[in-house]
Amino acid sequence: MPEYKKMRFAYGFDDVALVPGDVTVNPELTDVSFELDNIKFPLPIMASAMDSVVDPGFCILFNKIGGLAILNLDGVHTRYPDAGAMLQEIVQTPADKVTPLLQKIYSEPIKENLIGEIVTKIKKGGAICAVSTTPANAKRFSHFAVEAGTDIVCVQATVTSARHKSNSYEGLNFAKLIKEIARPLIVGNCVSYNVALELMNTGVSAILVGIGPGAACTSREVLGVGVPQVTATMDCAAARDTYLRETGRYVSIITDGGFRTGGDVAKAFASGADAVMLGSIFAKSEEAPGKGYHWGMANPHPALPRGTRIKVGTTGSLQQILFGPTSVTDGTQNLVGALRTSMGVCSASNIKEMHKVEVVIAPAIKTEGKFWQMSQSR
Amino acid sequence: MPEYKKMRFAYGFDDVALVPGDVTVNPELTDVSFELDNIKFPLPIMASAMDSVVDPGFCILFNKIGGLAILNLDGVHTRYPDAGAMLQEIVQTPADKVTPLLQKIYSEPIKENLIGEIVTKIKKGGAICAVSTTPANAKRFSHFAVEAGTDIVCVQATVTSARHKSNSYEGLNFAKLIKEIARPLIVGNCVSYNVALELMNTGVSAILVGIGPGAACTSREVLGVGVPQVTATMDCAAARDTYLRETGRYVSIITDGGFRTGGDVAKAFASGADAVMLGSIFAKSEEAPGKGYHWGMANPHPALPRGTRIKVGTTGSLQQILFGPTSVTDGTQNLVGALRTSMGVCSASNIKEMHKVEVVIAPAIKTEGKFWQMSQSR
Amino acid sequence: MPEYKKMRFAYGFDDVALVPGDVTVNPELTDVSFELDNIKFPLPIMASAMDSVVDPGFCILFNKIGGLAILNLDGVHTRYPDAGAMLQEIVQTPADKVTPLLQKIYSEPIKENLIGEIVTKIKKGGAICAVSTTPANAKRFSHFAVEAGTDIVCVQATVTSARHKSNSYEGLNFAKLIKEIARPLIVGNCVSYNVALELMNTGVSAILVGIGPGAACTSREVLGVGVPQVTATMDCAAARDTYLRETGRYVSIITDGGFRTGGDVAKAFASGADAVMLGSIFAKSEEAPGKGYHWGMANPHPALPRGTRIKVGTTGSLQQILFGPTSVTDGTQNLVGALRTSMGVCSASNIKEMHKVEVVIAPAIKTEGKFWQMSQSR
Amino acid sequence: MPEYKKMRFAYGFDDVALVPGDVTVNPELTDVSFELDNIKFPLPIMASAMDSVVDPGFCILFNKIGGLAILNLDGVHTRYPDAGAMLQEIVQTPADKVTPLLQKIYSEPIKENLIGEIVTKIKKGGAICAVSTTPANAKRFSHFAVEAGTDIVCVQATVTSARHKSNSYEGLNFAKLIKEIARPLIVGNCVSYNVALELMNTGVSAILVGIGPGAACTSREVLGVGVPQVTATMDCAAARDTYLRETGRYVSIITDGGFRTGGDVAKAFASGADAVMLGSIFAKSEEAPGKGYHWGMANPHPALPRGTRIKVGTTGSLQQILFGPTSVTDGTQNLVGALRTSMGVCSASNIKEMHKVEVVIAPAIKTEGKFWQMSQSR
Repeated sequence: MPEYKKMRFAYGFDDVALVPGDVTVNPELTDVSFELDNIKFPLPIMASAMDSVVDPGFCILFNKIGGLAILNLDGVHTRYPDAGAMLQEIVQTPADKVTPLLQKIYSEPIKENLIGEIVTKIKKGGAICAVSTTPANAKRFSHFAVEAGTDIVCVQATVTSARHKSNSYEGLNFAKLIKEIARPLIVGNCVSYNVALELMNTGVSAILVGIGPGAACTSREVLGVGVPQVTATMDCAAARDTYLRETGRYVSIITDGGFRTGGDVAKAFASGADAVMLGSIFAKSEEAPGKGYHWGMANPHPALPRGTRIKVGTTGSLQQILFGPTSVTDGTQNLVGALRTSMGVCSASNIKEMHKVEVVIAPAIKTEGKFWQMSQSR
Repeated sequence: MPEYKKMRFAYGFDDVALVPGDVTVNPELTDVSFELDNIKFPLPIMASAMDSVVDPGFCILFNKIGGLAILNLDGVHTRYPDAGAMLQEIVQTPADKVTPLLQKIYSEPIKENLIGEIVTKIKKGGAICAVSTTPANAKRFSHFAVEAGTDIVCVQATVTSARHKSNSYEGLNFAKLIKEIARPLIVGNCVSYNVALELMNTGVSAILVGIGPGAACTSREVLGVGVPQVTATMDCAAARDTYLRETGRYVSIITDGGFRTGGDVAKAFASGADAVMLGSIFAKSEEAPGKGYHWGMANPHPALPRGTRIKVGTTGSLQQILFGPTSVTDGTQNLVGALRTSMGVCSASNIKEMHKVEVVIAPAIKTEGKFWQMSQSR
Repeated sequence: MPEYKKMRFAYGFDDVALVPGDVTVNPELTDVSFELDNIKFPLPIMASAMDSVVDPGFCILFNKIGGLAILNLDGVHTRYPDAGAMLQEIVQTPADKVTPLLQKIYSEPIKENLIGEIVTKIKKGGAICAVSTTPANAKRFSHFAVEAGTDIVCVQATVTSARHKSNSYEGLNFAKLIKEIARPLIVGNCVSYNVALELMNTGVSAILVGIGPGAACTSREVLGVGVPQVTATMDCAAARDTYLRETGRYVSIITDGGFRTGGDVAKAFASGADAVMLGSIFAKSEEAPGKGYHWGMANPHPALPRGTRIKVGTTGSLQQILFGPTSVTDGTQNLVGALRTSMGVCSASNIKEMHKVEVVIAPAIKTEGKFWQMSQSR
Repeated sequence: MPEYKKMRFAYGFDDVALVPGDVTVNPELTDVSFELDNIKFPLPIMASAMDSVVDPGFCILFNKIGGLAILNLDGVHTRYPDAGAMLQEIVQTPADKVTPLLQKIYSEPIKENLIGEIVTKIKKGGAICAVSTTPANAKRFSHFAVEAGTDIVCVQATVTSARHKSNSYEGLNFAKLIKEIARPLIVGNCVSYNVALELMNTGVSAILVGIGPGAACTSREVLGVGVPQVTATMDCAAARDTYLRETGRYVSIITDGGFRTGGDVAKAFASGADAVMLGSIFAKSEEAPGKGYHWGMANPHPALPRGTRIKVGTTGSLQQILFGPTSVTDGTQNLVGALRTSMGVCSASNIKEMHKVEVVIAPAIKTEGKFWQMSQSR
């Protein structure tokens, strides 16, 4: 018998739907709080460490509202004393000239003294401070950030594993880093049971889940790599449950990326997420530094640029996006209201109960005109 | 072994097709009647309790024709003595201003005296009267409606279960309500075996099936919640069969929403429905109060509005939509003729035999131009 | 345990592809002949009994070329002595007025004397004559046709089974009809193992396979009924094999409808077809009476019209469509060349060997622009 | 029990995605070299034997860069002493006149003396020379090419098997041919385990995999034949592994065709390919003789022309397409960089480790507008 390679199915947000439960719960009674080690957040929602989404002011506001916004230590804020001017230039440059501009702006070296300054600014604002860096810069940058008082450190690359083979620099040792910073460490991104489990064994407090989640995602196009978010979250959540059973320690699963609507957010929690991290949805807020534009760190890559600056528009205040009231009817605003309503109809009083909600595979093949016609189709 | 979350597949109307049977039956010989407890209807078709579809005049006409139209007690007719003026205003307002208008119109308090008046009007017209209310208003409103002589009460929310957790108001007890009204109670909507069974145990006469049926449905987008109608109907029909086996009582399954064509109607019955409830298809009738426009109760929601008023157009008389003759060839008219023909080719002499027809999974991925080209492709 | 309704998958031409075989065969060496009882045809291809495709002249030419065209006894040729004038009127009427015109033209009663005349005309042309009628008219019309010398009789309705429940007319008894006509009888359409087997037991010579084959097919939209052609053909072919094993008699399977390209034709044979019946592809021939237009008998239906007259255009001569040479590159011409080539790469020397070719499920989701780009994508 | 025909699923590049591994590897540490018998290539990438892609100059340059370009002995270069003039004419002719022109140009007989000249030219350029011919011309043409010093011979037809049934010419005996040429022989194309194994048994050095790979591929449309590339590659790779186990000899698997992006290339290797062969991607290079146009040998077919000349545009130098730096962000440039990055995140240090990477089924249904929106969707 020939041995053919085996493949299993992987599912994304558009492929699934949640099944209402046996008891309906009043949305106001649902508890959506999230705990990262001993730090408690009223909302299980984070804002991505992207320059178009998060600046110090956004961090302070977002934390006041109940969530956690993460500041990117590899972006404009640590490269330029006047980061605002750079952001303005990016926003005002025409589309056909923006990739070279981004490549230029992000080639400016990082000033280590700016790391401390930015952390201090956020702490002075009364917020919980979380900063993000790449694996390569993690040791050095986290040192400065911790010294300045950051509460949480995030080490994030498109793909992260506990082990790294390289000639050019010594691999990052997460266990050692955690000891040094003595603070919760969030690490990512990963998408599989094995990698999640191995990272948990290093002592991290939370795992970011999400690599090439969308079928049309750049990582999928350029690298062929990617796992749809529902399956990725379910796999990493299974690792969390295994690890909890074996060690008694609860490591949080944060689903990062691929969200378009409040429905997607609810599906992530039903897939096992403890929190979600959003970028483009918050880039649309009035308070976002991108002023209606959105770009990532993959775009300025000198040799393999992916994606580009896109115009997302400004659709409302952060308050409206999270809590409404809203006049948009497409699921991109009042995310918390939608999550609580979804939990209520699914019999979930809190996020951990949401993990047990039944999920069915029910692909959403959309055709433009059909959308609204069916939206009230009864 | 890691314990991954399990998911099963769920199918909608577009995903399936019916297989012709061993014997063809002359359409004229098919029996499509439907019984709700002891009330018999020549047609197994209901009209949704929506202001754009049903007003007292529509109720009377629709019942004369053979089906049952349900009047919404939470709509304009119980808020305004001159509901017609409100409907006219909604219909004449431009699209960009209609959501705030709907929000305003539907914030007017309900006048309890109007409940009795409207029921009286329908009964005077010689029709079987059925009224619909929300769980929150059910006890109070059904009292007035029953007093005025309604024949059937319907309690309907997007999602309904037999149990409800809430601080703000005492949960509705369906068993108690049924005793009080002493009339058939229709309750919904639900989509799962367990919830359907639990509702049946409270003594309801019929269950409405359908939550976020369409892939592009607003509930799916905003809440992530929804089960395609074929699977939802099959699951609730399985509950009906279990309940019948155990108690000897037959509770009707009414598939509500997601229909586009007569083919969809036939598929609902083959999935186990005893009756179907249609909204947008009847909103297209000359007799509909929406005058070619259609909107639901989810749109005027103050905090999480979903959908909007849509222009469906007026395509023919109710008579044409139900029985033809028709000049449209897309399956949106002569629904009863199509159902009888479908039953005939599927060897079904009545609706219960239609429940046994073979259904195959045969997804319909449509591309615009391909439609008509293939419609005669032999 | 609840008993959920079970469903199996059904596949169409676009869902599958053929796998090349172990030996390549020179196309010129392939034998594509087809035998209906003792009548042998060089080509396994039939032309549908539709007024836009087949008239007496087309019958004669098509038979000369090697296939079998079937004349519709319920169309214009038996209703009008000067059928050509009617065809011309249909072709020249604007699109928005054509359905009422068709309804009018096809309401003219059939003249039984014209049946004999038309059969005589075809026989005088030296062709094998095959005529088609509906079950209701079968006994009467076939009598006249046989008397005039037809070689083959075809009884065809959208859906046909061996048994029919009706009050209005006595069911057609196929066994009795076969005795009366003493000629090969082709009956259809059906799509399932059971119906095919039951029809074979009545003594028919061939079965037409195809009900609502396309996902966008009118029968699917209007009635919900239909089985994609690959599965339908496989099921009926399984019935043929069972029947052959049990009785020693070989009943031919003719896949009828749903073809767009030569690739679809090859797939039908690999699914088990002994012959194929095409309509719209031949409506595009210069010799077709429809002059570039195509319509069926479902469109003039007085109460439930389906489909409409469509413009298919005239793309080449019948010779070109069947044998090339061709300048079109989309698979709609040189069907026989394509079939022989396909058989050659699939190791099939004749149609019965083609039945054994491996078929894989490999859905073809097409996006406009992608088509040509990928057509040479290496 | 009826015996229904069985079908298995087949998957293409768009249907799958790669799962990141447990260890990340620095891209610079990955080994992407490829060995054909004893000839070692720094890159596992070949350029298709198509006139719009490869001419002698391209061969020399491509080999210098690290890969292998194959010259088509049945194209313009062996039909005309001044092939450049012919290429220019093809490129300058308007689209509606190009198929007849191609038919005319490719009907000119091949001059055997030109075969030697072209091989000499390539060898003089210092490159490894590989030439391609059809099975019909293989014996004769390879003789001339070997005499002139070619290093590798490729025998390629759309579909090739080890055995061929024909009256018109004696089947090609690969074992005999290999003895005669005493050089590595590459044969293709095939897509199945059995055919691959049988070809390996004749002694060939490598197998080209790919018949009708794309859902919209011409072979699929016209012939119904084709297997998506992931499944085809996996099946042939399984044959390679079986053959290696049984004989100890390693026959290379070269996936040929169907590639759009670097992601597709990575997926081919994860499916088991030892090398990939690209056409249209290199037709877009500044060095390609097609000057931004692309056509294949199927188009000038006199009786069954498939595809046409398409405008692919010129997007960059070969250097950019293979190694970057690039300003395009859609995965069509820096293919080697993308492959190395993909290998790095998938824990693969070399191509053979890439064969073991986990592949999941995760269909990519793309909608135009959604693409970029999701490309940075976090």
